[in-house]
Amino acid sequence: MNLNEKKFLVVFQPSGRQGYVSEGQTLLMAAREMGVEIESICGGQQTCGKCKVVPDFGDYSKYGMVSKAEHISASGDDEQNHWLKRRREAGAQRLSCAACVHGDLVINVPEESQARKQIVRKSAVSRQFSLDPVVRQYFVKVKPAELGDRVGDWERLQASLSETHHLKDLRIDFFALRDLQTILRHGQWAVTVTVWQDGSCEDRREVIRLQPGYQEGIYGMAIDVGTTTVAGHLVDLRTGQILTTEAMMNPQTTYGEDLMSRISYGMMNPDGVAKMHTAIIEALSILLKRATHAAKLKPEDVVDMVLVGNTVMIDLLLGIDPIELGGAPFALVTHEALDFKGRDLGIKAHSGAYVHILPAEAGHVGADNMGVVMAESPHTQDDIVLVIDIGTNAEILVGNKEHLLSASSPTGPAFEGGEITHGMRAAVGAIEKVRIDKLSLIPRFRVIGQERWSDEMADEEIKAAGICGSGIIDLVAELFSAGIIDHGGKFVLDTPSPNFRPTAQVGEYVVATATQTSTGREIIITQQDIRAVQFAKSALYTGAKLLMERRGVEQVDRVLLAGGFGSYIDKQRAMMIGLFPDCDLANVYAVGNSAGDGAVICLLSGERRRRARELARWIDYVETAIEPNFQDRFVKALGLPHNSDEFPHLEGLIPERPPIIAEGHRRERRRVKGKD
Amino acid sequence: MNLNEKKFLVVFQPSGRQGYVSEGQTLLMAAREMGVEIESICGGQQTCGKCKVVPDFGDYSKYGMVSKAEHISASGDDEQNHWLKRRREAGAQRLSCAACVHGDLVINVPEESQARKQIVRKSAVSRQFSLDPVVRQYFVKVKPAELGDRVGDWERLQASLSETHHLKDLRIDFFALRDLQTILRHGQWAVTVTVWQDGSCEDRREVIRLQPGYQEGIYGMAIDVGTTTVAGHLVDLRTGQILTTEAMMNPQTTYGEDLMSRISYGMMNPDGVAKMHTAIIEALSILLKRATHAAKLKPEDVVDMVLVGNTVMIDLLLGIDPIELGGAPFALVTHEALDFKGRDLGIKAHSGAYVHILPAEAGHVGADNMGVVMAESPHTQDDIVLVIDIGTNAEILVGNKEHLLSASSPTGPAFEGGEITHGMRAAVGAIEKVRIDKLSLIPRFRVIGQERWSDEMADEEIKAAGICGSGIIDLVAELFSAGIIDHGGKFVLDTPSPNFRPTAQVGEYVVATATQTSTGREIIITQQDIRAVQFAKSALYTGAKLLMERRGVEQVDRVLLAGGFGSYIDKQRAMMIGLFPDCDLANVYAVGNSAGDGAVICLLSGERRRRARELARWIDYVETAIEPNFQDRFVKALGLPHNSDEFPHLEGLIPERPPIIAEGHRRERRRVKGKD
Repeated sequence: MNLNEKKFLVVFQPSGRQGYVSEGQTLLMAAREMGVEIESICGGQQTCGKCKVVPDFGDYSKYGMVSKAEHISASGDDEQNHWLKRRREAGAQRLSCAACVHGDLVINVPEESQARKQIVRKSAVSRQFSLDPVVRQYFVKVKPAELGDRVGDWERLQASLSETHHLKDLRIDFFALRDLQTILRHGQWAVTVTVWQDGSCEDRREVIRLQPGYQEGIYGMAIDVGTTTVAGHLVDLRTGQILTTEAMMNPQTTYGEDLMSRISYGMMNPDGVAKMHTAIIEALSILLKRATHAAKLKPEDVVDMVLVGNTVMIDLLLGIDPIELGGAPFALVTHEALDFKGRDLGIKAHSGAYVHILPAEAGHVGADNMGVVMAESPHTQDDIVLVIDIGTNAEILVGNKEHLLSASSPTGPAFEGGEITHGMRAAVGAIEKVRIDKLSLIPRFRVIGQERWSDEMADEEIKAAGICGSGIIDLVAELFSAGIIDHGGKFVLDTPSPNFRPTAQVGEYVVATATQTSTGREIIITQQDIRAVQFAKSALYTGAKLLMERRGVEQVDRVLLAGGFGSYIDKQRAMMIGLFPDCDLANVYAVGNSAGDGAVICLLSGERRRRARELARWIDYVETAIEPNFQDRFVKALGLPHNSDEFPHLEGLIPERPPIIAEGHRRERRRVKGKD
Repeated sequence: MNLNEKKFLVVFQPSGRQGYVSEGQTLLMAAREMGVEIESICGGQQTCGKCKVVPDFGDYSKYGMVSKAEHISASGDDEQNHWLKRRREAGAQRLSCAACVHGDLVINVPEESQARKQIVRKSAVSRQFSLDPVVRQYFVKVKPAELGDRVGDWERLQASLSETHHLKDLRIDFFALRDLQTILRHGQWAVTVTVWQDGSCEDRREVIRLQPGYQEGIYGMAIDVGTTTVAGHLVDLRTGQILTTEAMMNPQTTYGEDLMSRISYGMMNPDGVAKMHTAIIEALSILLKRATHAAKLKPEDVVDMVLVGNTVMIDLLLGIDPIELGGAPFALVTHEALDFKGRDLGIKAHSGAYVHILPAEAGHVGADNMGVVMAESPHTQDDIVLVIDIGTNAEILVGNKEHLLSASSPTGPAFEGGEITHGMRAAVGAIEKVRIDKLSLIPRFRVIGQERWSDEMADEEIKAAGICGSGIIDLVAELFSAGIIDHGGKFVLDTPSPNFRPTAQVGEYVVATATQTSTGREIIITQQDIRAVQFAKSALYTGAKLLMERRGVEQVDRVLLAGGFGSYIDKQRAMMIGLFPDCDLANVYAVGNSAGDGAVICLLSGERRRRARELARWIDYVETAIEPNFQDRFVKALGLPHNSDEFPHLEGLIPERPPIIAEGHRRERRRVKGKD
């Protein structure tokens, strides 16, 4: 140790990290030594301006020192040029790579200069984003090749990256290596290097892109591959900003509307899996093209991707036959997160770009559910949260930071309009809201694509085409509260409604008359349709209750309804049919496309990817199918809520008895008896 | 430790490793614990029969024990079935995975059962091959998936590989993962896994192939990508045997015969590099197809490849513009060995197969030279060896196990027939041998494709087309020893030969008359041609001498002439023109295609690949172009040997003075004077 060397106290805010720094050292070096991560693309060459800091002068008695302006070196020509070029006043700002320590200092590191940022984005529930992407740009100047050098250009580049940015043990993508010499010379030995860092391992780093000279701009895509819709967000990986969002129909719908029909298509057709695989890969390339075009970028500008989707969608995306997911034991290919080159799948992004797929929890709880977890963070909360992601298979999460359980419940396609006489997907013409007048027992409804309700329009204008999931839930809840169906879900046969028709001991209810539809045929709901809804809601409810029991709670503090469907359903009516366990309706939220949001979160953060890997193993998956009393509970939960014991928050909303029908009309007990 | 547990001494031969083994333990387990590597595909399931050992019974006083037949368990049904199925007598052999220890034992591990083998193959110089390929097959039984399992099939496979074969930290190739579920079920949860292990790092392992059930057979290709010829060996990686060898013209010759003309082609044509790249990749796929077809295999059976070639050939193979190698400072893209997926280049082998490219020493000393080093092993020898690989750029190695130096010498294309009036490649019709009668000064010669010499045939039968490298060396040496050219390489103008014609102060010599050629035109050698040969040989000689000086030796013990060219030249005549420094001619060897042999050696051994990486850095590369006195030495060495001081082994062969020409005809001194 040099005894003559002077050392000064430097404190970095807001972290409060402090340490003694040798006279003349730059603030950037000092920060690095203390583990304060400051952004820098150029690695201290006064070029990129990312390492801005704001010195704070004054008497800091709490640190036992005074931070003074004369304790910092004056800005030199390079730094002054930097501010000049950007037509900005330096003001109180300094480039930390230029400013040197000549006395005790307190230094503020503004949010934008911090290498790991926290971003809060507004959403249904506000979400915190961590910004530490797995791809980063580094600018370096490389020593030109000289005659007699024994090392290659790649080794020279590695030496520069090690010296300027402390990056070691780098690999290089084959295609980046291919362009290396041309780019180095084109940039006159100055190059911007994009480095990918394995989410599972900080030490595995790979150069995936080279750009001549100094370049800024690093973009990624987060894509939610849904059974019906594929939606992608183009994200600026330096700011965390979503630049564009594009969505399109999953072209696989041609081969089957739901998961099981796609699995069957693969089984029945020798090239079925290949066809569905090709279709989704082409769709991803189109999505990339559209999203980048809208942001005035090119698909090759995308250097990182995160994909989420249910396990069947991920299988088809990878070109794996999903047949194993079509039946017990629902074996996954892998439950681990995957990182592979997009080019291996033919995805047309940058040639070096990796695709990251979030881990799965079990055969039916896939990357999309991990996306939901990453977005809603139930594992960080004190409150007991119930998250429901409704689809053909509903995924359920119950718990908090101490213990989180997940399950998959086979709801069937009822909520997607499947197996319902006039069911349809949520598209133009679909009845999405229904109200039944308690006196006349006549319905009114609203279809997607229309602003007004059916009773505010001429019948011919309505053009109803069918009923979508949210409409079906509304309808069953309204039939129930109007007393047209009973607690068992059965039509009360002597219902005095012009829309009700008893048919061979059962019955059906006309929602839209022939003149109100686009087909010229009535839209009805049958006893069987109601039965299908009961099956679906009971599967969900039973799954949720089972997880609550395992978690040791009788009540959840919050219910989050994830997915597009969750955004449209009427919370009160959903609870009234017993879709989810009792909760204060003020604490029931539709959180939108959480899976996609989770993909964005993981696109922005290597730490979150590592967290997802851990969480996928930490979350306690419950296979409901092998629960001994699942079937009994399921059957018991098929009925509609009897009273408010089970649903205190429905107090006054549940019909204790069919409300408007005269005593004499109540035949429920009789009919049940008759069945005995 | 269990005090009651009995332990016995087991000695494995030929390694002599010994240790105490618990009663009842299998010999395979015991061997593993002692670090004795025994082959096993099935991992101890008595299936593959690779782990055969031969117990040796008798009194081993040197180990202080007696090895007895009753000290080993009797063979059970499984083992007996194994021998029965193979219609073989068990004899003294035992499966080490079945035989258990019940007393002191001496066990012989036969060559074929050793996991790392040494193979000696006959060649010009006998070579030792190490057999520890970087790809290996492992057979495992995987636990079938069960309902409620949370792990995927890949994780289940990893668990089995860890348990049965102690393989940990495995990655899996994307395409292998894709087939995993189908193959596991097709093989009824039994699978043969091919694992690739990074040559640079024992811990980086990747599953690159899956085969259902128990499978044997693992093949690789070693390919020498020459400027003119591409030659490949298909190798059985279990036995080290070369199954087939195929060669074809490098299709890039269409774009230029030598390296410089290919570099120029790339510079002059916008898609030149892409064209040459595509051409060589297609050639490799054809070579793979032919070689595998000849062995009744398929290209997809090839799971590993090693490629060598000069730095320009490797650049073009990778799709890199070799422009940097066309001029100083001759910058390499990388000097390190490369491992990448063959599929990234479009090479049609197995989808998971890696391509390994040997490291380079410098801009002009590439993977082919490392191949030569691996084949000739000068770094392991006591003798000082000079290795010369002659081509457009000759690579030179001088040294032994203590210090080895390399250099590249710009010989120019003379030895390949380039820049010589009637020069041509070594093809049918090329004059490859020449003798000049010392009295008549008339030549006779032999052309490629003919058994007889020119004076044993009718002139019309000969059909000479030109002179190839070995012919040119013969010719210059013969002209010199016949006194037709002098020590300075100049024609003696009053040479009394009917074949000599003085022309404008210089002269030319007719090798083949018009009737002896296929074109009907004479084949001659001009003063300029001789000059070109002198330049070439001087470059080589000066390079070799420079390295010898650096190495501190005046004499080398052995000269190895590598490459196809080296196999055809007349050693004595080559030394007579001073192509290489003096050496006992008995110790000058033509070693054939050493680079290709080196590729095979590295295909067979991960250890050799690691060694090559070290050696490429250890070998002391000398850039002759920046040696201050290289030019002087080069000019000095242009002449033909004056006397036997420099070449004691040419004693009596070097003409002290032109031997058969009368005193009066010697005008050498006069002409030199005339020039002054």
